[in-house]
Amino acid sequence: MANFDALVNSISKLNIENMYGEDFQQTWTKSDDELNATLQVADALRNLRERNISTRVFDSGLAISIFRDNSTRTRFSFSSACNMLGLAIQDLDEKKSQIAHGETVRETATMISFMADVIGIRDDMYIGKGTAYMNEVINAVKESNRDGILEQRPNLVDLQDDEDHPTQALADLGHIIHEFGGVENIKGKKIVMSWAYSPSYGKPLSVAQAIIGLMTRYGMDVTLAHPDGYEVMPEIEEIAKKNAAKSGGKFTKTNDMKAAFKDADVIYCKSWAPFKAMEERTDLYGKGDFDGIDKLEQELLAQNAEHKDWACTEDMMKLTKEGKALYMHPLPADITGVSAEEGEVDASVFDRYRDELYKQASFKPYMIAAMIFLSKFKDPAKVLKELEARGTQRHEFK
Amino acid sequence: MANFDALVNSISKLNIENMYGEDFQQTWTKSDDELNATLQVADALRNLRERNISTRVFDSGLAISIFRDNSTRTRFSFSSACNMLGLAIQDLDEKKSQIAHGETVRETATMISFMADVIGIRDDMYIGKGTAYMNEVINAVKESNRDGILEQRPNLVDLQDDEDHPTQALADLGHIIHEFGGVENIKGKKIVMSWAYSPSYGKPLSVAQAIIGLMTRYGMDVTLAHPDGYEVMPEIEEIAKKNAAKSGGKFTKTNDMKAAFKDADVIYCKSWAPFKAMEERTDLYGKGDFDGIDKLEQELLAQNAEHKDWACTEDMMKLTKEGKALYMHPLPADITGVSAEEGEVDASVFDRYRDELYKQASFKPYMIAAMIFLSKFKDPAKVLKELEARGTQRHEFK
Amino acid sequence: MANFDALVNSISKLNIENMYGEDFQQTWTKSDDELNATLQVADALRNLRERNISTRVFDSGLAISIFRDNSTRTRFSFSSACNMLGLAIQDLDEKKSQIAHGETVRETATMISFMADVIGIRDDMYIGKGTAYMNEVINAVKESNRDGILEQRPNLVDLQDDEDHPTQALADLGHIIHEFGGVENIKGKKIVMSWAYSPSYGKPLSVAQAIIGLMTRYGMDVTLAHPDGYEVMPEIEEIAKKNAAKSGGKFTKTNDMKAAFKDADVIYCKSWAPFKAMEERTDLYGKGDFDGIDKLEQELLAQNAEHKDWACTEDMMKLTKEGKALYMHPLPADITGVSAEEGEVDASVFDRYRDELYKQASFKPYMIAAMIFLSKFKDPAKVLKELEARGTQRHEFK
Repeated sequence: MANFDALVNSISKLNIENMYGEDFQQTWTKSDDELNATLQVADALRNLRERNISTRVFDSGLAISIFRDNSTRTRFSFSSACNMLGLAIQDLDEKKSQIAHGETVRETATMISFMADVIGIRDDMYIGKGTAYMNEVINAVKESNRDGILEQRPNLVDLQDDEDHPTQALADLGHIIHEFGGVENIKGKKIVMSWAYSPSYGKPLSVAQAIIGLMTRYGMDVTLAHPDGYEVMPEIEEIAKKNAAKSGGKFTKTNDMKAAFKDADVIYCKSWAPFKAMEERTDLYGKGDFDGIDKLEQELLAQNAEHKDWACTEDMMKLTKEGKALYMHPLPADITGVSAEEGEVDASVFDRYRDELYKQASFKPYMIAAMIFLSKFKDPAKVLKELEARGTQRHEFK
Repeated sequence: MANFDALVNSISKLNIENMYGEDFQQTWTKSDDELNATLQVADALRNLRERNISTRVFDSGLAISIFRDNSTRTRFSFSSACNMLGLAIQDLDEKKSQIAHGETVRETATMISFMADVIGIRDDMYIGKGTAYMNEVINAVKESNRDGILEQRPNLVDLQDDEDHPTQALADLGHIIHEFGGVENIKGKKIVMSWAYSPSYGKPLSVAQAIIGLMTRYGMDVTLAHPDGYEVMPEIEEIAKKNAAKSGGKFTKTNDMKAAFKDADVIYCKSWAPFKAMEERTDLYGKGDFDGIDKLEQELLAQNAEHKDWACTEDMMKLTKEGKALYMHPLPADITGVSAEEGEVDASVFDRYRDELYKQASFKPYMIAAMIFLSKFKDPAKVLKELEARGTQRHEFK
Repeated sequence: MANFDALVNSISKLNIENMYGEDFQQTWTKSDDELNATLQVADALRNLRERNISTRVFDSGLAISIFRDNSTRTRFSFSSACNMLGLAIQDLDEKKSQIAHGETVRETATMISFMADVIGIRDDMYIGKGTAYMNEVINAVKESNRDGILEQRPNLVDLQDDEDHPTQALADLGHIIHEFGGVENIKGKKIVMSWAYSPSYGKPLSVAQAIIGLMTRYGMDVTLAHPDGYEVMPEIEEIAKKNAAKSGGKFTKTNDMKAAFKDADVIYCKSWAPFKAMEERTDLYGKGDFDGIDKLEQELLAQNAEHKDWACTEDMMKLTKEGKALYMHPLPADITGVSAEEGEVDASVFDRYRDELYKQASFKPYMIAAMIFLSKFKDPAKVLKELEARGTQRHEFK
């Protein structure tokens, strides 16, 4: 297939030698070529699968999942990605394990990794903790591999941390590229990452940060909109600014939702907790001050309730480019009158974009598979071609 | 093997084109040919496995399990069936997931299905809910497949709903056919589906309904026996009546356990809750009236306790054909003096039929595998032959 | 590879025909050849894996895990072992299952085993219970296989019982053999199995018993050291004595930790509960006397606290052979100042041996895989050679 050949050809020209044997954490730690490789390998794997050609590159092997927060979507995306490459999942359920019993991260990471090819971690609940934990795990398995304890080094896939949500943002980017008919068409397009009211409290900042941190790389005109007091981490804003300067895009901040929506091509609209409050919560948690956490929660809910007008309504959508901006959400959304009395989005807006929202989500398993694939093969373009030539049918009989 | 060839030959002649790409819900939604195909494919897969010939038809792929009620047997049967076809299981644990957070069924069904080939669901607790939920899931994945969101449509296997228990009833039928030496020998044989006392409360009606709904299809002389007040759903009785009329079988109801057992060839004897009470419970549950549920439970337990004489005792078994009817139970049984002070069956009866009971259970993984197989291949007879010809050893070395 | 050929050659000469189709329980039920075969097959499988040669011997198949005690290490070891042989795991989670509902072990064992190739069980909490339960499971599946209910007989791997911990002890032995450069070099070496203080209560005796029961087989000079009152089971001491007499090794007991450490080559130092107290706890548990259990626990903790000087300190290590004995622990350890205020071992000692400790743990998945392998093949040496000749790459592309 022409499309597949073009993808393979493009991948073969990218400078991605540093991905081999390495981990996938925040997108801002990756080069442009590395991000493009991820997007293109994802497309190539999807192309093979659509032709019922097996993408199984492992005869056997284990992928470990560690979810420090509940998860359906991410769990199934990770499972799907691993399964299509031939890896079986073993979940580390920290409630069933002995980790709490004073065990160090290095020890556990090593003990579970004797035959692990991949480790997927989601740890997004406390500012300053998720990435730190993932780094500990990475260092642990590197060290154990270097010291001859682990025969192979499992590569980490960051399934959401306290700062970034790389698999989500890349899936989102893949979706935008497909909707606009190619990466060359998204340059200059206006995307709004807007805060929205939700009755729940303390949603992670990582999606918002992931979006401004990634879309600015691709020359998009990125507007971050939120009420005063809902600032994201200043370091990530700094990254967005630098990215925009380098890519020829824009990064703008506003507390005016309407101004933000004006002429937008893409609307990404969801609730998050203020960064400073999350930081405070992490401190209180560290001190074991649970009364303080309760008090903080009450304050945040009260603060939240002052901004119920921050919603993606039909009227707001009319402000966008021809009233037809692409509406995006990582799901599940708090839909007004459906899943919440007052929520992030009008039911009619959500319904009109339902198919697009689900397509957006469909990119995630492929992004995870691409991240694993790129960490495992020195010459991924060659392996993709070999998979096509091997031609094993996934579904073996007709 | 002659047996295998005969099976394949027979399957090739059945009109089963509507099974391809479809789901397996209640047996009464399937044609005679479709039920026969399920029985015969199950036998053929078992035959291959007994000869250590791999039945793996998927190189990779996911099967999703959703158990809305605790389950050991069904969980392992589903796992076994999927494993023998090459699918890995990913369980949707609703306690660990975000489903409760106001998410619609359509959304969750789509989110977990991006790479799903099969979805197995057990949902039998509330009248009017299980089948409705499964239909929602089916419609969701159909729609998402039609709209280009899902690349493939996962097929549903109904692992027990509020009305029927198709994998159980077909496994039971497979067992009866094997015990009587062929499907042609069960016509006219008397099977009693009898209520029996159990100290527990609120067991599903679906096994009883599954048995009368299926065995009447095969020309059996089916007697439904229970104390007054333990009626099953009238719609299912209606189905049983029509089936019997069409197949040349019989469907009789009685409140007299002894009359029922008289000259029976097969005794199927287990507790269930009265349909009307289950309906009431569902209503109370819907209203959140938990005091009402407690009160209802007390009433049901009192009502139950009036019928302790409904048990499959040695004396009762003596009434059956030559005192040697085949005793059946879906397990686990409440055995008098063993697992309950007073229960559904005498320990000596249960012990005498233990091997048969376990053989009965052994059919279930094969029925599930057959249902999946038939949903995945247009020409299942051809694929079975190809599997034999491929001859891959499951256990690869000698 | 020379090493691989030598291993295969050695395995081919061992008298191991009784392992085929059988289970792996306590090491003292196995012959010397059978233990040596386990060690050597583990090495051979590791050798293949290190050369990226697939050890997948099953095209499909299920391994069942039953963990009646929390477990991370053992769960991952079992998963890894099964995965490298081609088996998928299905866990029997007794909390999610219906086992508690008056079901017999025979019934459950059969119901979950219709397609099971292996059953791994950890059940170490109550004296006299774990092995008894495993025997029940073994007898159940044997009987069901003999009676034509199970098409194959799943073989049991004892992942820790109330008396022995065979996968741990064999992994430990593998580690010692590798550290000393060959099985011929460990004869006469002094290994100390010493009790150590831990603030937690009621750790199983099975590791201590496993070590004295196994290392005495290999001609080692085994010293069991513990405070008065921390006796292990007399039957196991008896086994150790007999083993030592037969192998030309030694088995000594002492209540003097310093005397024990004197000139030791290997130090194995961990906490356990006194056997008699464990027996009492089992009795109290049987009677449902939970006040009694609480009282016993308080007594044991008080008794424990009298022996805080039993720790593997730097000073103690200086007493060993050239101050350089190999320090071992099954992990996780209670490290003084790290995972416990006062614990089993000084942090500096633990840190110095960290790599060795992790290498020790790395043997466990291979031991489990070897146990399964030996139960499944009549001529394991031949199958190993065939695996090498087949040469399937585990990680399929370069």
